[in-house]
Amino acid sequence: MRRVAKHCQNYGQRVQNSVFECKINSAELAQLKENLLNCIDEEKDSLRIYYLGSEKRFKVEHYGTKASFDLEEVVII
Amino acid sequence: MRRVAKHCQNYGQRVQNSVFECKINSAELAQLKENLLNCIDEEKDSLRIYYLGSEKRFKVEHYGTKASFDLEEVVII
Repeated sequence: MRRVAKHCQNYGQRVQNSVFECKINSAELAQLKENLLNCIDEEKDSLRIYYLGSEKRFKVEHYGTKASFDLEEVVII
Repeated sequence: MRRVAKHCQNYGQRVQNSVFECKINSAELAQLKENLLNCIDEEKDSLRIYYLGSEKRFKVEHYGTKASFDLEEVVII
C-alpha cells in the first residue's frame, strides 16, 4: 500500500487510507496505471479507477473533516 | 462504520472497507444522505459522495479481485 500511495500522491491527495483523488492527464494516467499494476498482486489486491471527467465540480460532495481540493479528474481506490 | 455500511448496502455493494458503489435514483440518494449524515460525526468523520452519472460504463476500471457489478450511478466513501 505504501508504494501505491507514493505513486498516487504524485498526482493528488489521499482522502482515505486507500483512496486517492488525482488531477491527471491521459499520458500521466497511463504511466500511473503501469506503476500501480506493477505494485499490486492481482490475485489478492483490488484496484479501482473511477473517471470523474472534467466538466463540472458537482461530481463530488463532501461532508465532515479532510475537505479535498477541487477535484476534477480521477479517483483511485 | 457498521451503520453507514448497513444503509449503503441497501443500494449497492461494498468494494472496500469504507467504499460503496451504489445504484441509486435521486429520491433514494436524498434519503440515504440524510441517513448517513445522521450516522457520522462531522467533527471527526469524512463522507465523500462521487457522482458517476449514468451515461457509459467507462467510468470505472477494475483490476484484481472483488470485481463489481456494472456500476453506473454513485460511489460513497
